[in-house]
Amino acid sequence: MSQKQPIRSIGLVVRQDRPQHAITLATDLTGWIKSRGLDALSEPLTAPIIGARSAEPAQLGREADLVVVLGGDGTFLGAARMTGERETPILGINLGGLGFLTEITTDEARNALSRVIDGDYEVDRRITLEAVVARAPEQGGQEEHFRALNDVVIVKRAFGRMLEVHVVADHKPFCAYRADGLIVATPTGSTAHALSAGGPIVFPSLRVVVLAAICPHTLSNRPVVLPDSFELEMRIKSDNHGALLTCDGQESAHLDQSDVIYVRRGKHVVALVRSVHPYFEIWRDKLRWG
Amino acid sequence: MSQKQPIRSIGLVVRQDRPQHAITLATDLTGWIKSRGLDALSEPLTAPIIGARSAEPAQLGREADLVVVLGGDGTFLGAARMTGERETPILGINLGGLGFLTEITTDEARNALSRVIDGDYEVDRRITLEAVVARAPEQGGQEEHFRALNDVVIVKRAFGRMLEVHVVADHKPFCAYRADGLIVATPTGSTAHALSAGGPIVFPSLRVVVLAAICPHTLSNRPVVLPDSFELEMRIKSDNHGALLTCDGQESAHLDQSDVIYVRRGKHVVALVRSVHPYFEIWRDKLRWG
Amino acid sequence: MSQKQPIRSIGLVVRQDRPQHAITLATDLTGWIKSRGLDALSEPLTAPIIGARSAEPAQLGREADLVVVLGGDGTFLGAARMTGERETPILGINLGGLGFLTEITTDEARNALSRVIDGDYEVDRRITLEAVVARAPEQGGQEEHFRALNDVVIVKRAFGRMLEVHVVADHKPFCAYRADGLIVATPTGSTAHALSAGGPIVFPSLRVVVLAAICPHTLSNRPVVLPDSFELEMRIKSDNHGALLTCDGQESAHLDQSDVIYVRRGKHVVALVRSVHPYFEIWRDKLRWG
Amino acid sequence: MSQKQPIRSIGLVVRQDRPQHAITLATDLTGWIKSRGLDALSEPLTAPIIGARSAEPAQLGREADLVVVLGGDGTFLGAARMTGERETPILGINLGGLGFLTEITTDEARNALSRVIDGDYEVDRRITLEAVVARAPEQGGQEEHFRALNDVVIVKRAFGRMLEVHVVADHKPFCAYRADGLIVATPTGSTAHALSAGGPIVFPSLRVVVLAAICPHTLSNRPVVLPDSFELEMRIKSDNHGALLTCDGQESAHLDQSDVIYVRRGKHVVALVRSVHPYFEIWRDKLRWG
Repeated sequence: MSQKQPIRSIGLVVRQDRPQHAITLATDLTGWIKSRGLDALSEPLTAPIIGARSAEPAQLGREADLVVVLGGDGTFLGAARMTGERETPILGINLGGLGFLTEITTDEARNALSRVIDGDYEVDRRITLEAVVARAPEQGGQEEHFRALNDVVIVKRAFGRMLEVHVVADHKPFCAYRADGLIVATPTGSTAHALSAGGPIVFPSLRVVVLAAICPHTLSNRPVVLPDSFELEMRIKSDNHGALLTCDGQESAHLDQSDVIYVRRGKHVVALVRSVHPYFEIWRDKLRWG
Repeated sequence: MSQKQPIRSIGLVVRQDRPQHAITLATDLTGWIKSRGLDALSEPLTAPIIGARSAEPAQLGREADLVVVLGGDGTFLGAARMTGERETPILGINLGGLGFLTEITTDEARNALSRVIDGDYEVDRRITLEAVVARAPEQGGQEEHFRALNDVVIVKRAFGRMLEVHVVADHKPFCAYRADGLIVATPTGSTAHALSAGGPIVFPSLRVVVLAAICPHTLSNRPVVLPDSFELEMRIKSDNHGALLTCDGQESAHLDQSDVIYVRRGKHVVALVRSVHPYFEIWRDKLRWG
Repeated sequence: MSQKQPIRSIGLVVRQDRPQHAITLATDLTGWIKSRGLDALSEPLTAPIIGARSAEPAQLGREADLVVVLGGDGTFLGAARMTGERETPILGINLGGLGFLTEITTDEARNALSRVIDGDYEVDRRITLEAVVARAPEQGGQEEHFRALNDVVIVKRAFGRMLEVHVVADHKPFCAYRADGLIVATPTGSTAHALSAGGPIVFPSLRVVVLAAICPHTLSNRPVVLPDSFELEMRIKSDNHGALLTCDGQESAHLDQSDVIYVRRGKHVVALVRSVHPYFEIWRDKLRWG
Repeated sequence: MSQKQPIRSIGLVVRQDRPQHAITLATDLTGWIKSRGLDALSEPLTAPIIGARSAEPAQLGREADLVVVLGGDGTFLGAARMTGERETPILGINLGGLGFLTEITTDEARNALSRVIDGDYEVDRRITLEAVVARAPEQGGQEEHFRALNDVVIVKRAFGRMLEVHVVADHKPFCAYRADGLIVATPTGSTAHALSAGGPIVFPSLRVVVLAAICPHTLSNRPVVLPDSFELEMRIKSDNHGALLTCDGQESAHLDQSDVIYVRRGKHVVALVRSVHPYFEIWRDKLRWG
């Protein structure tokens, strides 16, 4: 795990709207990667533009020994969905303002990449969440599995009145939430949606999850920090409106009252190449504590 | 305003699921109303059960000189949608726990009704909101009008990433919110959805509105209290996801980027028959300050 | 109210630490005021430095037809304590960052002053608070009066465990707070201490007060907005620790269990010369909504 | 550590105001303890009343193999100050409402005590905090040490305007807080003062601390969860007002600008005899989530 793989193949994941400066930088990095005798691959729509070998996301996740993200935190989350049990290191380069996950500036990009190729880097092993939606036997009894680096969120449908979710934690009754939604966040996700919902900022290495309700009806339903070893088991109790599950902000599943949703620590971590910027500096900058 | 209409016709609005004790009380009240030579009317599904004359909501709103609500705050909001420019007084009787709007207990019901019929009552004139969705000329240029006693809420679609709403207040640029949603609440609605979103509790007689964002991205986007004379003008700036408008929790309209949404004080008030219970007592009880 | 007094005498109130650029600007303004045949006066420690006539604060308040503040919001609050029933207009010039109350930049200073002297200005009539500490008869029965533009705050002594304050509002029992402190803020003060305690941002012209507890023990003790016509009557119930009263952050009185503290709208307003900058712009800038 | 000591001597710590039902229960428990051939000791003012051997707090801490608390969380915190490196188990019996720390009811008291004496119990090893105030060499250079189970709090003096505290965490610059105060809380303390200040509820076994500012000037200074292995190093930067340090709500030290305050995990834990009531049940009850 901490044994570093030699890096032979590098996947470049560029922000979906492919702005010109991202393409310029990606093209430059691709040329440089190839000049070092390494393989550069990228998604089908981007690869031909930047001169890389084309690979579907799943293939990119399987083949790349290092993933370089050019974009913001959203692009990083997308790249993190491609890597999986390989726990491929991901280097995040932001194209504009500093990101919580993309901490390298474009100026620092080539230097940072060079150091990583030389093995001169550390990774942050960020915990992930696994969400399982277990359908009732009479609904087919299937299980759907999802993965998140930031958060798993259950929300009421927009026109529903109120979401009621009963939560069992560590196999014990925990809380019956009535709210607009319920967020389960990793430390990585604590500075994203959960923060807007009133949750705390959590140091990234901690082995905890944050539960934060969105607009809780009961005002004392304050955010809770639990060990990441606790399995959460959730059931929707609201009447006929249903609910929705999103993972890292991506549409994931429609939920109804007969489903059971399990959220637990994912088997695999996301290996974030550690920045030269300490977390505290990133927090101060992003949260404007200055 | 303070000139009271003589009460000849009384509309009874019963909670939608018509629990037995509501029906029993409604039947009792209907009998008593008729024994006093007055007209009792109710919605088509309820009327035959309780012995009242059947009337569609619109007709009930037109004909009733007094509306009696048997239910919770949700039922009251429904009844308030029936009354309109007539500003018919509404008496709220709660069937279980005290409501913010339904403050009379079942035990107090007949006494309270008797006093109201005798003209021995005061009303709270609660301001309402009018929301107008103005479609762009190329979309047909139509206007849809909505009315709310509690709140007008714009929310992102459940699977959307982020809502961006630009707000102009009193014809001046106010704030560009990035959030899960934005609530405009009356004082009456300040103890409902807006309170869950971090808004203040506002004394009901004040001529103000509360703007409270749901999960604002910018942490300093704290709830704001503005004069109710300010017109709010809102435009959705988020890309292709769209947004939704709800009024008092009811599905109202789908919104897109070419729409302009105006929210202003409604022309008519809702005339709430004032309870024997002072507001502060209701707040202490409902919010468990005790 | 809207009848403007001719301006013959101008008081200059400079930030207490008298930084060089403040002195330079004050000296420049003094010269210019005198060149227009008007009287310039300032506090004894500042007057000789800037070439103005020396006047004690009380005298300055009595004689000046206009007060010019060079400093931040703290300096403005000090100047507002000097003016009183005369409701002398105050023009706030900030020496660095924009203030909520000192909205004119040094570059705009002379122009703004010139317009005010010519009568070409509007004022915001900001409500104030009056706090009265009524000692029990056995404690001498005296009354102490205080005045605040921002807020009246009751806090526990630092080493006390918990403050308990029973509040009567509009002569009705309101709430028994257990907290570190309790803030009563005007709309002007809503963006100061009360905001840090979770209170809403209130439009300055509204005739309301905000009650916000500091670290309330009961989590549903959320900030409350009440009409400014309500008198608040407060009693300390905590045992032997006592409490303290501050007005606009100034030490005011020691409180004990036998005192009654009344807070009501002050008889006089503070007449703030309205800025060229709309409030919303100030909020966006100061709260970094951008 | 997890090797249980045989219990020969039991200290009883009774709430300071010694209400009658506490005395009755303590007398009953003392008789029963002695009837089992064990030693019962209590503080000098309580011991003669309940028939126990008299012992000063320090002696009680040294000699007791088990401490039984009869009171609320405040009494428990006092008892926890008596035990120290011995990590003596403490059994908390509440005299009225359930406490976060005193979870055993009076009815369950004798049974619970009996089980503990028989070795049939588990303890929660709750982390503590150690605060060190290091005076500057020119102030004598002394160090004062304090210990807390709930929290270490730095507050401005009541009449001071604003506290400014610069925090270094894990030897890196962390944040410059401007606030009324700053709370460093253990998971145990997360449901006390820190919760009122907006902090999260933290599961008691987690090895983390919560930093929560009281009324932070910067609205994005949200509560932070850090590993308990981080040393915090704090310096007061406010001008001449000074600040105060309290540990578990007890007066501890006056602070000035030349002091350095270190807060780190304490060497010893507090060994709380685990209740029959799961934490979640206690949270639901105490926070009225029901």
